[in-house]
Amino acid sequence: MMNTLEVPIDDSRQEIDTRLYPLLSGIKDPSDIRKLDMTQLTALCNDIRHFLINSLSENPGHFASSMGAVELTVALHYAFNTPYDRIVWDVGHQAYGHKLITGRAERFHTNRKLGGLSGFPNPAESEYDTFSAGHASNSISAALGMSVASSLNNESPRRNVVAVIGDASISGGLAFEGLNNAANANSNLLIVLNDNDMSIDRNVGSLNSYLAHLTTTKGYNTLRYKLFNALKKLHLVSDKNRGRIMRFNNSLKSLLTHEQNIFEGLNIRYFGPFDGHDLPRIIRVLNDIKDMNGPRILHLRTIKGKGFDPAEKHPAEWHAPGKFNPEDGTKIKSSKGRPTSKYQDVFGETIVELAGINDRITAITAAMLSGTSVSLMQQKYPERTFDVGISEGHAVTFAGGMATDGMLPYVAIYSSFLQRAYDQIIHDVSLQELPVTLCIDRAGIVGEDGMTHHGIFDLSYLRNIPGMTVTAPSDEQTLRNLLYTSQLPDRKGPWAIRYPRGNGNATDWQTDFSRIEYGKGRKLSDGADVTVMSIGTIASSVTKAIEQASADGIGVTHYDMIFLNPIDESILREAAESGRPIITVEDGTVKGGLGSTVLEWLSANGYDNQVKILGVPDKFVPHGDIKSLHKLCKMDPDSIYSAIKMAKTSVNL
Amino acid sequence: MMNTLEVPIDDSRQEIDTRLYPLLSGIKDPSDIRKLDMTQLTALCNDIRHFLINSLSENPGHFASSMGAVELTVALHYAFNTPYDRIVWDVGHQAYGHKLITGRAERFHTNRKLGGLSGFPNPAESEYDTFSAGHASNSISAALGMSVASSLNNESPRRNVVAVIGDASISGGLAFEGLNNAANANSNLLIVLNDNDMSIDRNVGSLNSYLAHLTTTKGYNTLRYKLFNALKKLHLVSDKNRGRIMRFNNSLKSLLTHEQNIFEGLNIRYFGPFDGHDLPRIIRVLNDIKDMNGPRILHLRTIKGKGFDPAEKHPAEWHAPGKFNPEDGTKIKSSKGRPTSKYQDVFGETIVELAGINDRITAITAAMLSGTSVSLMQQKYPERTFDVGISEGHAVTFAGGMATDGMLPYVAIYSSFLQRAYDQIIHDVSLQELPVTLCIDRAGIVGEDGMTHHGIFDLSYLRNIPGMTVTAPSDEQTLRNLLYTSQLPDRKGPWAIRYPRGNGNATDWQTDFSRIEYGKGRKLSDGADVTVMSIGTIASSVTKAIEQASADGIGVTHYDMIFLNPIDESILREAAESGRPIITVEDGTVKGGLGSTVLEWLSANGYDNQVKILGVPDKFVPHGDIKSLHKLCKMDPDSIYSAIKMAKTSVNL
Repeated sequence: MMNTLEVPIDDSRQEIDTRLYPLLSGIKDPSDIRKLDMTQLTALCNDIRHFLINSLSENPGHFASSMGAVELTVALHYAFNTPYDRIVWDVGHQAYGHKLITGRAERFHTNRKLGGLSGFPNPAESEYDTFSAGHASNSISAALGMSVASSLNNESPRRNVVAVIGDASISGGLAFEGLNNAANANSNLLIVLNDNDMSIDRNVGSLNSYLAHLTTTKGYNTLRYKLFNALKKLHLVSDKNRGRIMRFNNSLKSLLTHEQNIFEGLNIRYFGPFDGHDLPRIIRVLNDIKDMNGPRILHLRTIKGKGFDPAEKHPAEWHAPGKFNPEDGTKIKSSKGRPTSKYQDVFGETIVELAGINDRITAITAAMLSGTSVSLMQQKYPERTFDVGISEGHAVTFAGGMATDGMLPYVAIYSSFLQRAYDQIIHDVSLQELPVTLCIDRAGIVGEDGMTHHGIFDLSYLRNIPGMTVTAPSDEQTLRNLLYTSQLPDRKGPWAIRYPRGNGNATDWQTDFSRIEYGKGRKLSDGADVTVMSIGTIASSVTKAIEQASADGIGVTHYDMIFLNPIDESILREAAESGRPIITVEDGTVKGGLGSTVLEWLSANGYDNQVKILGVPDKFVPHGDIKSLHKLCKMDPDSIYSAIKMAKTSVNL
Repeated sequence: MMNTLEVPIDDSRQEIDTRLYPLLSGIKDPSDIRKLDMTQLTALCNDIRHFLINSLSENPGHFASSMGAVELTVALHYAFNTPYDRIVWDVGHQAYGHKLITGRAERFHTNRKLGGLSGFPNPAESEYDTFSAGHASNSISAALGMSVASSLNNESPRRNVVAVIGDASISGGLAFEGLNNAANANSNLLIVLNDNDMSIDRNVGSLNSYLAHLTTTKGYNTLRYKLFNALKKLHLVSDKNRGRIMRFNNSLKSLLTHEQNIFEGLNIRYFGPFDGHDLPRIIRVLNDIKDMNGPRILHLRTIKGKGFDPAEKHPAEWHAPGKFNPEDGTKIKSSKGRPTSKYQDVFGETIVELAGINDRITAITAAMLSGTSVSLMQQKYPERTFDVGISEGHAVTFAGGMATDGMLPYVAIYSSFLQRAYDQIIHDVSLQELPVTLCIDRAGIVGEDGMTHHGIFDLSYLRNIPGMTVTAPSDEQTLRNLLYTSQLPDRKGPWAIRYPRGNGNATDWQTDFSRIEYGKGRKLSDGADVTVMSIGTIASSVTKAIEQASADGIGVTHYDMIFLNPIDESILREAAESGRPIITVEDGTVKGGLGSTVLEWLSANGYDNQVKILGVPDKFVPHGDIKSLHKLCKMDPDSIYSAIKMAKTSVNL
């Protein structure tokens, strides 16, 4: 795509072994699937599972979700005429099987690697990937749009559009907005609810218990489904008199089960729940309902990790397990032992310590309990820990409400998902100057999860909010002390603390707490030629660059800003007065972040130092390892070093 | 508040006439209400209605919503111990009655005026206003936060928290996320659903038809409610065995009505629907249910505009009617006849014309049909017009889905509400470079609606998105031609077009379409001393300032940028080369918008022109007339003139 940083495509192919995968190896695209009989289709599902186990044990990725969706995937491509018919996957980590049978098996060893396949459906990669699918809950709205477009265009034959959404994703507000609109629009949308009773962690919310409940009414639903089909075959009912049938169904249901159904309350015809691993049955049901008019929901119960024992037993652990032994599921530890801590754990362990000394502290996350290490807080202080499910907007407003009545909520959300709560941050927190702390995990370039997951806009979209304190620690101890400082009695208004995915460098960060002076950065090195200001953990790349530079005899003054808002004006003045060229470095977009802040201040105060802004260029960034991506963005140590040398040279000219 | 621009408080008071308002005049705060008997309470409701009619006929504001909520308001303050108990109003324009009986009747003539009362609940104004309430659907989440905080703090006596939400607001995704979490949290939240079957325009979505349906089951619900209370009084049931009761209720319900209830599906106990104007009854019900444990929803049917015939008949028109004759409801036209058009109508009429020549065009709005003039499109092309209700996120993703399949959707949403769709703009549109056009109404300072409604962040939060074309027309014809240009065959990727609330200056804007060159601004005036670059309709203030300046002999070159992204580099180079000081002017925050863009470009290209950024300072802006607020923000013609003079002087020094 035009607005994405280009990397050379890794088009290397590994032939699919015909002995190991007799059926999968024969599938060039889904039309080949439609030639198979039921026995072969079942064998194909086995092939896909074995292929996923073997491939992902070596080249790690999301595992359990895709394992649970194998039959569903095969059934959809069998029953529907893809790519003419559209499948919209919600949160694409269930879609690996889909990638394998849509011509990408031979490239699957490049999954999530630089230049390789994306770990999520990506329309730029394949015509079978109909929509971007990194953030949860968007499939119903997007599919509804496609379905309406198809009606408006009078496509012939009618184009079927299927949204495949998990039970966790369907609890997001966006999915509800989609559901609420699906019945009213002129659409033939089919929603497949892939219900495995798990998001990344255990699912939460009352909709979830509701779904679990529906399962118990299976007998009734099966009966109803059979009745409906029987009546239809006898031409006693048609899609035209659907309203009547629904009333009939509802009465029947009430009589049989005394149960209610949310979806039918929303005028979406409901089918299920069915066993999502019973391939012949799913195919039969899909064929039965695919040409019906109006919105329908098909509820399938699946098992996350299905077909691989260890994963079935511990599905959360096997969401994205890393390398493992395909025989027995033993995890294979990376050979470079890393004694350092993940930033998320520095946050998690510190917040637990602080909660022990400050009982106003609460922790909130949105279905990222283990990903943010809020799980540590939950173990120790369950009554002060809230996992609200996939609902970032609610998480922030809920925190605002709590803060109104004296609590100090810490909301831990990944940077790119926090975009979902932008209005809530402004309207429900900042306008009222409430002491809510946003703990922004996975900020900056995140690596293999790629384009949809990089957290590169937060510095820019947060620092324009009046009164929002925006900080980024350069190391673990600073993160720890920012958290400490943010809960001291004189703390005011909203704070954001952003930190990256992955490990830091220290092993000894768990020192005594000390207050960080509000709005103050610090000088990390002194040198006469060039000034570098950085914010966040990218400071360590700057340090490396400075080592190179000083070997060349170039002196660099390096400021670790810590605060983006308010910016440390004493540092800016000192740097400006020195007259030296300034380089700013940040792990975020170059538009509107640290660099812009520095330029705005210099201009407002009448200085004209030369300024070079390093950071993520004004492009979307593909997936790959973080190191390569930093290089691509010219924010790796070598590129920073080059910028320093160039700044020094330009001054000497 | 610290982060809000200060204006002198208008504390002028008008005594409440004891003869006209015998009861209202005696209410200093809600404790006075609790001393009244039922006859007096009913009389108080009459007083409130008459007061609202008289006051709002002179000093316009939101009318119909508050008229419908009078009994509800009195009942809540009667039954609950406010301000200790908390009432959280969702979208505060139903809360005028609440303001009157919480000590603000004498100041109500200052409503929405500079320094006067805010038109929405505002915690900075009164301890009875518990939460910011300008954007819809946040009340359940905020109230849940308060309720949980109260439990954690072991408040004694127990603090009751009530969220009052309309039937339109409850269809927003944020409200659903709140509902979905309410049942699981340890809370005693009471949700009052104020159901008048109307948002600003007619309500949409299947939840809405669902609510209408519930009403028909009134007989059953009443019976159930009576039964429950009878059993409770006989000590046959208690809140502890609530689970059992709910099952009992559900069975009973199934037997009696064959109906389902979404709220009980979510484990929220449901009461209603009741007549929201039957004061004794609402009070009785509130008293019955207020001390129950766990989340409850009370469904009240109300009539928007209740008590004023013209408003009951045309509630949409009377949402915010302007001045009117309190006797017969005749609207009073402003004495200055304005032959010019509103920007929203320029958009609305133009999109209808374009839809006539381009059948790929669709229009989408989110419960702002008449506010954005998408209503014009709906009249002409209903099949291509989509009002999705209060769900901005869905609106954008839905548009993304449509664009995937060949349509050209125009999404018309107010700037400050579009913040709700920030992630969808990034993830569901921009990443995929889809041709969705965001028609951003009410951009910049909006005047009387104030702090929650000013659209001052959009330029900043949109221009950091890779590939997003960001434009703002300086006049009606340019808006018209931007719309025209955005639907030509070579148009690519997402576009934003922002324009302000209110009227433009031209009467002859409906000229032939002409293409605007992509990424190009234009020169409006030529002068030797100072350069001004502006974006958007603030250009007319710049023109006035330049007239003043040229009378002083100061020559100003004025560029109308039109495009913020991509910025017109030929203009920047010309301005930079001239060496003249540059002033940038924008109706948006000074952080990250046009000014920052200019600084970034100058710095990257090695220029050091002096730059002064005019726009909304880094503060929230209160309510008042637009002219005063522009002055406050120093972006009125006089302030721009002063900046020009100062720039000229500084160069001469």
